[in-house]
Amino acid sequence: MPANSLDPVLVQLRGDRTRGASELARWCVQKLGEQAAEAGATSTRGLYAELIGLAEQLGRARPSMRAIRSLADRWIAGLPDPDTMELERYRREASTHAERLIRSSELATSQAAEQAADLIGPGRTVITHSLSSTVLACLTLLGRDVRVIVTASDPPGEGRVLAKRLSEAGIEVDFISDQQMALFVSRADVALVGADAVASDGSVVNKAGTRLLALAARDEGVPFYVCFESLKRGPFAPTDVEIEIHDSDELGLPPLHHVTAHNVYFDVTTPELIDAWISEDGVLTRP
Amino acid sequence: MPANSLDPVLVQLRGDRTRGASELARWCVQKLGEQAAEAGATSTRGLYAELIGLAEQLGRARPSMRAIRSLADRWIAGLPDPDTMELERYRREASTHAERLIRSSELATSQAAEQAADLIGPGRTVITHSLSSTVLACLTLLGRDVRVIVTASDPPGEGRVLAKRLSEAGIEVDFISDQQMALFVSRADVALVGADAVASDGSVVNKAGTRLLALAARDEGVPFYVCFESLKRGPFAPTDVEIEIHDSDELGLPPLHHVTAHNVYFDVTTPELIDAWISEDGVLTRP
Repeated sequence: MPANSLDPVLVQLRGDRTRGASELARWCVQKLGEQAAEAGATSTRGLYAELIGLAEQLGRARPSMRAIRSLADRWIAGLPDPDTMELERYRREASTHAERLIRSSELATSQAAEQAADLIGPGRTVITHSLSSTVLACLTLLGRDVRVIVTASDPPGEGRVLAKRLSEAGIEVDFISDQQMALFVSRADVALVGADAVASDGSVVNKAGTRLLALAARDEGVPFYVCFESLKRGPFAPTDVEIEIHDSDELGLPPLHHVTAHNVYFDVTTPELIDAWISEDGVLTRP
Repeated sequence: MPANSLDPVLVQLRGDRTRGASELARWCVQKLGEQAAEAGATSTRGLYAELIGLAEQLGRARPSMRAIRSLADRWIAGLPDPDTMELERYRREASTHAERLIRSSELATSQAAEQAADLIGPGRTVITHSLSSTVLACLTLLGRDVRVIVTASDPPGEGRVLAKRLSEAGIEVDFISDQQMALFVSRADVALVGADAVASDGSVVNKAGTRLLALAARDEGVPFYVCFESLKRGPFAPTDVEIEIHDSDELGLPPLHHVTAHNVYFDVTTPELIDAWISEDGVLTRP
């Protein structure tokens, strides 16, 4: 199999601006499982080496989204020893391994969402930023018992996707521009966001603007919660997480002399701004 | 003259999304001066009554932009007594009165800009939000001795107009989405914004997002300055300023069941977040 057989997957992964880290991590493992079944290797050792190489490529492709690297690492760690079985059986085992990892991540996400829904309770107004599948799952559990303030999250505006999904679930939504965060946070009972990575000190890497929401929430005395599958929590410092910078064309500014447009995609919300870290393992509150 | 002769002016005034309050206030007085010269009144008293009625309409058209009402009030207060002169002379006097008010506002704006430029000094990086003619004048005075971080201010994105004007003045600009405020404020030495209204307690009504910038600036220890012509300062409480709400179509969200889009156009930055109030009268720092 040529080394570039995952190139279209890498391009899609790097360009994806709407799916969160958990969804993308599971999608990567699904692609790895498909490669295990279909790659043109002629020996078990050859297939093993290819799968590891591909997993490493995928794990590095979105450096701010630690869930992808963590799930790719778990994929590598859980691959069977290539010396113990013949090629066709290896393909099947590796595919099954991928499916198990995906199911486990799905379960962790839905358990984290349940924990968040339990903590928030019915009848509340929740403000969120960006689009997190864990937050969406939590809000869907709360259903008609929740009202949600959704920020546009421009660029690229994935808040519009969230508004549409909540609308389809029959949930009441107030949709605002990012500029209006400080105006609307006081109407919320709680701020809830997902995470792309959670550092060992509790700092949360998430879509740019998350820290602004946390500052506005603190200013208004609105509790700020983060929910995530524990896969995103790592033994790393916040400064170890490479912050992705994307194409500045997304800002819609024509080229101008002396003007540099920036599209830093993630920011870091430090632990003093966070009131609860919610994962499938439970709720951790700030000491 | 029919009462609706200023209707196109009112429509343009209500729909203007790029000019700041000072520029719009002067533009209104210019239109009043033109009406004084051209209105179809047949008596001095008739003209006087028309001009007052029109000024009151313009003064109420953009309730968050107190400069407009203040300048319209000054226009009314400074009109000559209609019983003291015949119609043609009254037309000339009223036009001259308009020109004087406009020059006086321009002078106040440029003096406020000079005060701000003196306070900031050369070699600094300034972060701003929205488009203020006073801030633009200050930055133009600093010229190549300043670097400016400009937020998009979406919607409608008047930061793009500011970036273009600064570019034309040869000033170095970093252009960011509103989401990136917390990421970039730490690169600034000072945050500087204009104002649409300044309440008697020092609260500043300005484009939505200004309070977010102030919160981010405080969090990073970056001083937050407001500059404005004193015309905008009023004997009113912040709650007396009606906050304009504009068409939510500007948010670019298609209609969705259960979803309400909001476009609250201004927010209030309370005095504890402000380090200096700069007008043509000088610099007031927080006690």
